[in-house]
Formats: sequence, structure tokens, C-alpha cells
Amino acid sequence: MTPRRGRLVAFEGVDGSGKSTQARILATTIGAVLTFEPGATGLGSALRHLLLDPGHPEPEVRAEALLMAADRAQHVAEVIRPALEEGRAVVTDRFSGSTLAYQGYGRGLPVGELSQLVAWATGGVEPDLTVVVDVPLAVARRRLERGAADRLERGAADRLERGAADRLVKRSADRLERLDVRFFSRVRDGYLELAGADPLRWSVVDGDADVDSVAAAVRQAVEQRLGDVFDEERS
Amino acid sequence: MTPRRGRLVAFEGVDGSGKSTQARILATTIGAVLTFEPGATGLGSALRHLLLDPGHPEPEVRAEALLMAADRAQHVAEVIRPALEEGRAVVTDRFSGSTLAYQGYGRGLPVGELSQLVAWATGGVEPDLTVVVDVPLAVARRRLERGAADRLERGAADRLERGAADRLVKRSADRLERLDVRFFSRVRDGYLELAGADPLRWSVVDGDADVDSVAAAVRQAVEQRLGDVFDEERS
Repeated sequence: MTPRRGRLVAFEGVDGSGKSTQARILATTIGAVLTFEPGATGLGSALRHLLLDPGHPEPEVRAEALLMAADRAQHVAEVIRPALEEGRAVVTDRFSGSTLAYQGYGRGLPVGELSQLVAWATGGVEPDLTVVVDVPLAVARRRLERGAADRLERGAADRLERGAADRLVKRSADRLERLDVRFFSRVRDGYLELAGADPLRWSVVDGDADVDSVAAAVRQAVEQRLGDVFDEERS
Repeated sequence: MTPRRGRLVAFEGVDGSGKSTQARILATTIGAVLTFEPGATGLGSALRHLLLDPGHPEPEVRAEALLMAADRAQHVAEVIRPALEEGRAVVTDRFSGSTLAYQGYGRGLPVGELSQLVAWATGGVEPDLTVVVDVPLAVARRRLERGAADRLERGAADRLERGAADRLVKRSADRLERLDVRFFSRVRDGYLELAGADPLRWSVVDGDADVDSVAAAVRQAVEQRLGDVFDEERS
């Protein structure tokens, strides 16, 4: 007997929203495969380096969307589809919603065209539920700054070599810089608009609270939409 | 006064068809910007290495098409569109036709869907004329073998270090290997079908002749469709 196709849950939100932490907690709770974008495959990892390397000029906006779509196509083919076909649940930290929010609402490409692009890249694999972890700019910024400080401290403790520490600081600075206020607002509003337009498949969770409270809210949202994920876990 | 938009001529064909040589000759003759795909931009060059590096597993077919489209989007934005807008003629060694022929006819993705993808990537920039340099498999194979031998000889003359020479041989072997007979036939037939379906914007030139004869045939095809390119050159 072929197992029933597994469920796919995607986490979306801006950097510093806490979505990666929440994705990890949910995946552990329901025993799902945990994965992420961009960069979960060999090809994706090379693309991620290419996109984040400050030595490379920032790609033109359509090229950026196409690279993200290429990463996703490989991710679906290598990781997500095989797991779903085995009947496993999959939790991914970012998926198609990121392209719509960042390259669409954030950078101004038509969202309808991007929807077609991502549908083509994934061969039609869509999340059964997309959870947006929503936070105000000040919260995201504070968390990114704290994260950078933590990483530096850990780096010092590990006697991290000077160059690596500098790169960490540079990367945090880059991420903070990307939180340009207007860009951030467009991306955040984009996520809320996407969720509002498809309330059966999207859910917004307030991320401005402690980790456990947010995790409880995520669990409630998932249980409400995809209760069987928990049923299977209990069975 | 804004200059009239320049003309774009694309050369297509399989490796070993002689299209790169013919692209160079035409560009010189009409004083056009000569460019190529994949890899003409900084981003594209990184993508080209990623695609050709035998250390990376071959990307899934949609991911490959999306990477080629990303390379093209950057190429159009950085190189082709600016030149056309300055009123310059541009000759490119490969363009959208390669995606249709290789990922479509060659690897089996629906050609209509790929057409939409490349139209989106280029923002609608299309060649005024695509020249297919057509050769039988035996000719392409013989030329690639001769090319590999020449490169090795030049390498030996330059006291090329051993590793680089090995890589050259490996790359030639890879290209020859890709000339799998059935794949080659599908790509070649694909080009001929594309050309047949749009005879005003595509032209097929017999590439199985000496360089000068092929160049004369190319020149005739271009003159017939885009005579003004030569008029401008003479004026």
C-alpha cells in the first residue's frame, strides 16, 4: 500500500521574526522532516553562497527571483517531494511565499507572474499550510542584534579566528541593513495580504512574545487546519 | 534624439556547430557588440562554473532551466538591453533558443511553458533574428575532438600545468559525452522545428562547410532579413 502523501507546512516571516525557531519546534513536535530555503541541497548551498557573497554584485531582480526558484525546484525534487511521497510530514523554513513577499511586494515584481513562476518551479507542490510569524520591525531588529552579539560571544569563546568573526559581524550588518524600513514594511504587509487572501491555507501568528507562547499559537493554528498531523503523531 | 533601438541577432546550434566562430565573424563585420550565454556577467560566470563543475551533481531539469533563465535575465539587464538602447547591434552566441532546444526538446520540458519562462526572464527582449548553424552529429563530434586536441597542444606549448591540462581534457570529454546521439538528435530537430515555425525571425544555415562559405551564408541570411544592419554599417 502506498502511504498517504505527507503534509507540507511552510514558515514565513522576515529575518528576526523567530520563524526558524518555530519551524524547528513544530518539526520536532510532529516528527516531521525539517528543511529550509535557500540552500538545503548541494546546488542550493552553492546558490546561497553566490547570493550572499558580498563579493558578487546584487543580481538584477528577475535574476534573483529565478535563482530562488531554481533553488526551490532542486529542493522540491531532492528533499520535499520524496519525503511527502513516503508519507512523511515536512516543515520548511521559507518556501514560495518568500518569493512572493520579497521579490513581489518587496522588490516590486508582479505577484501574479511570480505565482506562476513558483508553481512551475515546484511542479505544483504547495504547502498545505503556510504559517506567517509576524513581528514589528523593532522586534526583528532587536533579535537580529542580539543574535549577532551571541554569535560573536560564542566566536570569542571558541577562539574564533579574526577573519571569521569579522565575517559574522559583516553578515549581521548586512541582514540588519536589509531591514530598510520601507522594504521591511512592504514585505511584512505582503505576507499579511497573502495570508488574508487565502485564509484556509495561510495562518498569521503573532511572533512578538516568548518562544513557548508563539509555539503554542503555532500548534493551535496547525491543529485547527491540519489536525490529522497531530492525530498521526499520537497514533 | 534617442537613437533607434539596435538589432539583436542570436546564434544557436549544438556544441561543435561552429556557431561561436560565426557569431564572432558577423559581429566584426557589422560592428556589433559580441556577447554569449551562459556566463557573460559576473553572476552568469559564477552560474556557469556551478553548472559545468563536475564536483556538483547535475541539477534537476527545471532547476537547470531556471538557472539558465537567471543567467539570461542578468545578461539582458547588464549587457544586451543597455547596448540595444544605445542603438547598437548586438550578436549573442546562444540565447532563449538554447533553453527551448536543450531543456525543451532535449530534456523533455514543455516548450510552451519554457517560452513563457524565457519571455519573463528577458522582460520581452527577443532576437530580431536567430541563426541556427546546423551540422550533423559526425561533424560536431569531429570539430570538438579537433578543438580538444588543439587546446592540449597549445597547453603543452604554454607549459600548462598538469592539472589544468587534465581539466581541459576532462571538459572536452564531458562535452563529447553530452553528444549522446539521441539527445543530440532531439536538440537538432528542436532547432529545426523552432526555425520552421517562425521563418521570419529564424534562419537555418548549413554549417557543414568551410568557415568562409558558412559566413557568406550567414551574411546573406542576415542581409535578407535585416538589411538595414548592413546599410548602417556602410553609411
